[in-house]
Amino acid sequence: MNTDKIRQDIRGLSDGKIFLNNAGSSLMPSVVVDSMINYLQQEEQLGGYEVADRNAKHLEEFYDETATLIHSKPSNIAFATSATEAYTMALSSIVFKEGDVIITTADDYISNQITFIFLQKKMNIRVIRMKNLQDYELDLDDLEILIKKYNPKLVAVTHIPTNSGLIQNVEGVGKICRQYDILYLVDACQSVGQMVVDVQKIGCDFLTATGRKFMRGPRGTGFLYVSDKLLEQNYAPLLLDMRGAKWSAFDDYELFDSAKRFEHWELSYASLLGFTEALKYANTIGMNHIEEYNKKLSQTLRSNLQNSGFHVWDLGNHLSSIITFSGPGGDLENIQKVLKENNIFFSVTYKNSALIDFTRKNISGIVRLSPHYFNTREEIETVSELLKQSLL
Amino acid sequence: MNTDKIRQDIRGLSDGKIFLNNAGSSLMPSVVVDSMINYLQQEEQLGGYEVADRNAKHLEEFYDETATLIHSKPSNIAFATSATEAYTMALSSIVFKEGDVIITTADDYISNQITFIFLQKKMNIRVIRMKNLQDYELDLDDLEILIKKYNPKLVAVTHIPTNSGLIQNVEGVGKICRQYDILYLVDACQSVGQMVVDVQKIGCDFLTATGRKFMRGPRGTGFLYVSDKLLEQNYAPLLLDMRGAKWSAFDDYELFDSAKRFEHWELSYASLLGFTEALKYANTIGMNHIEEYNKKLSQTLRSNLQNSGFHVWDLGNHLSSIITFSGPGGDLENIQKVLKENNIFFSVTYKNSALIDFTRKNISGIVRLSPHYFNTREEIETVSELLKQSLL
Repeated sequence: MNTDKIRQDIRGLSDGKIFLNNAGSSLMPSVVVDSMINYLQQEEQLGGYEVADRNAKHLEEFYDETATLIHSKPSNIAFATSATEAYTMALSSIVFKEGDVIITTADDYISNQITFIFLQKKMNIRVIRMKNLQDYELDLDDLEILIKKYNPKLVAVTHIPTNSGLIQNVEGVGKICRQYDILYLVDACQSVGQMVVDVQKIGCDFLTATGRKFMRGPRGTGFLYVSDKLLEQNYAPLLLDMRGAKWSAFDDYELFDSAKRFEHWELSYASLLGFTEALKYANTIGMNHIEEYNKKLSQTLRSNLQNSGFHVWDLGNHLSSIITFSGPGGDLENIQKVLKENNIFFSVTYKNSALIDFTRKNISGIVRLSPHYFNTREEIETVSELLKQSLL
Repeated sequence: MNTDKIRQDIRGLSDGKIFLNNAGSSLMPSVVVDSMINYLQQEEQLGGYEVADRNAKHLEEFYDETATLIHSKPSNIAFATSATEAYTMALSSIVFKEGDVIITTADDYISNQITFIFLQKKMNIRVIRMKNLQDYELDLDDLEILIKKYNPKLVAVTHIPTNSGLIQNVEGVGKICRQYDILYLVDACQSVGQMVVDVQKIGCDFLTATGRKFMRGPRGTGFLYVSDKLLEQNYAPLLLDMRGAKWSAFDDYELFDSAKRFEHWELSYASLLGFTEALKYANTIGMNHIEEYNKKLSQTLRSNLQNSGFHVWDLGNHLSSIITFSGPGGDLENIQKVLKENNIFFSVTYKNSALIDFTRKNISGIVRLSPHYFNTREEIETVSELLKQSLL
């Protein structure tokens, strides 16, 4: 991996900023932005439909690149405008009945939690959260007990929670779901682009992801993976439109074969194309190389912070490129001041976005740093040193 | 209205094309494309979150401009990625029970029809289409009889069908829906931007629209109007996420007040901003001026074609800027050839997209021309003359 070359591809680094908010919305490679601008300019000349026709083949590459990224086939992939849209498209294809049970985790993403609570309120679905072990890993024995007891309609797990460094054991959960033949939905919003994500190894029925975070794509992009099994069983979203089916008789339609039936017919092709370039960029470097680099970088930053006296809140045995921490007495203000003064990009999360986790940890908020493969060791040492100095 | 100035604002007209596919995907004013490119370049420099923060006030203008356009308040507006997405967001907020009845029309849009059939298949909803009168106007007496007989959960009407020149009487339907207190959803995908659309006069609960057609905005944009009544009654989409509610307790949330609860948290702000510029552009000219101009232009084109011996398939007493026609013996091929050879942009629709209407009309397809306020009388005469000559 040639970090120099990768950094030259980022026009956003020219002012010397240190960008550590890749779990928020990353910096796009120049090829992503250039392809979007080029496509918009074509649309300006010819109108959106003519341009889509002329680029039909090119636009299909989105499905190829996504399939390569997650080890599936192009026919399993649907474009979405965000991981959350993909998530709700998936949920809407499941016919829930009153009393049905969903098993999830305490660390699942806020928007997923709100959607679950919505189902709980409106449709009397029961939402049960599996336990964590002492070391914060998912308690797979508890999952098995819950499955036997409740025969759930769905198990839903966020691979990497947004507000802690945890990587949840989605493969372990997948093994149990397959054993008991339970529908399994994985939110890979923060893992895709950060590390290798392999739907075959995970063994999930649905997987959702976003473009703007570690994938380094544009805002308003994401994707949904749907397994062959569900496609063959005619799963289709509540929002099925003419992208998904042929209107075959006054009161009938025929579903199309591929996961595109989970898409809306209308979408921003400029955004889809930009996202395709981002996917191609990551695939060309290789997710195994990106994962390896990211692991080292985040470990360095995490231990530097710990050694300087910060409280790092990332619990679990497998940690990600999301580093969450606070200063003495739970301080967030001084940290933010130092980072801002030095043109270092970060984010802050407060309790209402991670209600269960932060209640359990008894904290009101954290500062989040999320380095990525374009960051250098020198940047990590600079940030670590600045923060260390701020405590002295 | 200064047509010369308006045409100078369209870089896509520089090659002399005659663009008559505004019901498909129109040509954007240069200010729309420029604003999107500018925003993307900001995101490239700073990442998506920082740029959204810096532009927060500017981004709110979307709600103001949309409200101005349809005579509502900003708090009634949600951004959507298409009319279809807005439509299904609206539908998903209605709690349907087995046996519930939806009343719609024979001319409603294909994607809406597919969604209705989906509800029919999965949830045993009954879909009933109100009758048309001899002159193709909606039979409002029949609607009243159906309402009394079935007490429907919803009445859903497409304002201007995509594949015929008809303008459906949405105000007449609205009056009856209010009288019987029935939920009323209007698809204004083809009317918004083409003519004055006033939600107060229509009296609807939901109204959906797209950006890329007569509004002249970018692809992947649209909006949903939600009435105060429904907002107060806590209507919220199935896909509720953290845009719509505060996670207030482990198993509870509090809905936000405005129609933004029908949005996804994540979206393409570049697209939203481009759409805002398109809305502003139309509002500045004034929808009453645009409507007046469009009426004259489409009447001219329609009668020219009729007088030349083409079969115009636009039935009804109130006709729109969508002109659908075929040649002798149902010919579509020769028409397409002439139009293509002369750099005239158009579209063609086949039976599977307008199954009920085209079955009734006993036709297999139509050519569609859809002029807009940037087209000149000279262009209309040129196209009419070329087509006339092709029949000689």
